[in-house]
Amino acid sequence: MSFKILYDISMEISPTMPVYKGKEEKRPVFNVISSHDIGDTFETSITFDMHTGTHIDAPLHMIKNGKTMDYFGFENIFTNCLVLDLKDVEGGITIDDLKKAEVNSDIKIRNNEVVLLQTKNSYQNRDLNFIYLADSGAEYLVEMGVMGVGIDTPGIEREQEGHPTHKKLLSNNVFIIEGLNLKGVIAERYKLMLVPLKIKNVEAAPARAFLLER
Amino acid sequence: MSFKILYDISMEISPTMPVYKGKEEKRPVFNVISSHDIGDTFETSITFDMHTGTHIDAPLHMIKNGKTMDYFGFENIFTNCLVLDLKDVEGGITIDDLKKAEVNSDIKIRNNEVVLLQTKNSYQNRDLNFIYLADSGAEYLVEMGVMGVGIDTPGIEREQEGHPTHKKLLSNNVFIIEGLNLKGVIAERYKLMLVPLKIKNVEAAPARAFLLER
Repeated sequence: MSFKILYDISMEISPTMPVYKGKEEKRPVFNVISSHDIGDTFETSITFDMHTGTHIDAPLHMIKNGKTMDYFGFENIFTNCLVLDLKDVEGGITIDDLKKAEVNSDIKIRNNEVVLLQTKNSYQNRDLNFIYLADSGAEYLVEMGVMGVGIDTPGIEREQEGHPTHKKLLSNNVFIIEGLNLKGVIAERYKLMLVPLKIKNVEAAPARAFLLER
Repeated sequence: MSFKILYDISMEISPTMPVYKGKEEKRPVFNVISSHDIGDTFETSITFDMHTGTHIDAPLHMIKNGKTMDYFGFENIFTNCLVLDLKDVEGGITIDDLKKAEVNSDIKIRNNEVVLLQTKNSYQNRDLNFIYLADSGAEYLVEMGVMGVGIDTPGIEREQEGHPTHKKLLSNNVFIIEGLNLKGVIAERYKLMLVPLKIKNVEAAPARAFLLER
């Protein structure tokens, strides 16, 4: 293993970044408190949702009394990961789509790895119409025994009553990474380096994510 | 080199964390937007200064038209680093204090490494009276050709008119890490892993920092 970073798969946080369903109230708000015109330092503050850009969801996000991000430890920072090519899928990614992707890439999902779903989202801004992980796809990944699931959209599901995708993953201690940028990433195995901000007692946290050489 | 994390030297972000000079307006503000009592998800937003907890200062913080955090690249994430034991110093760390620490630990500061200053701050909360890096100490570190300087306090200097420590370091492209937690860290050489949030066009950014086995 080496420290060679191949891809920065984090989304950049800015006032014009893509946000969940394009909702204006989800945009980060920047406030310049001091600048070199009015003082002798430059200082910015930001107001943002924990679910802005690249971030990790902990169980509490969807499960009453679920674990907070405090559970996320050293063992989750460097993990084995598989990028799966799902760029042809429209709508929700099903169990069949995942199996087809495995066949097409001649690769099998392994237990204890993090699976990153590369979709059309990395190539087009699809505010309301983003590709998501369907209930059956989440169930398959849980069966495969994965450690985490990441996707290149602000949300891993949409318009599924009761949030079954989130609940299936989080109740099985599979963490979720939303808001990745997988544009141009070759679909294969990497070492994932996943680093959330250390914020106490929250249901999610903004993070940086990188793919390293294995 | 390996991926073994020895220490998490990041400060935890919370409503009761230590902040610069203990100023109330510097505290992060948490806002629970949705909880399982009022909705079907738990969702938090936060308002905080870029200089909260463990963070990196870019030149723009102190220098008009200076570089923003956008300059911080792959080559700054994994670096060689030296933790220097300065736990006996009161007030400002001078060139003499740094030279004495080198002698005491039988170690020499090398060019192109990041030097982390371990002070009393990691052991006591010293709101107004924190240990800082004096002007002469900053000048010595620049002469030694270091890549970055970190300290275990919310600010690398205090009560120095015109911010000479910040300016000396930043104008020489030496980055600054403030708000580290170096409690219990053995003063020797490590691999530093320094990961800021990816925020566009800001003068500083909150970060996670870890010491890895070399």
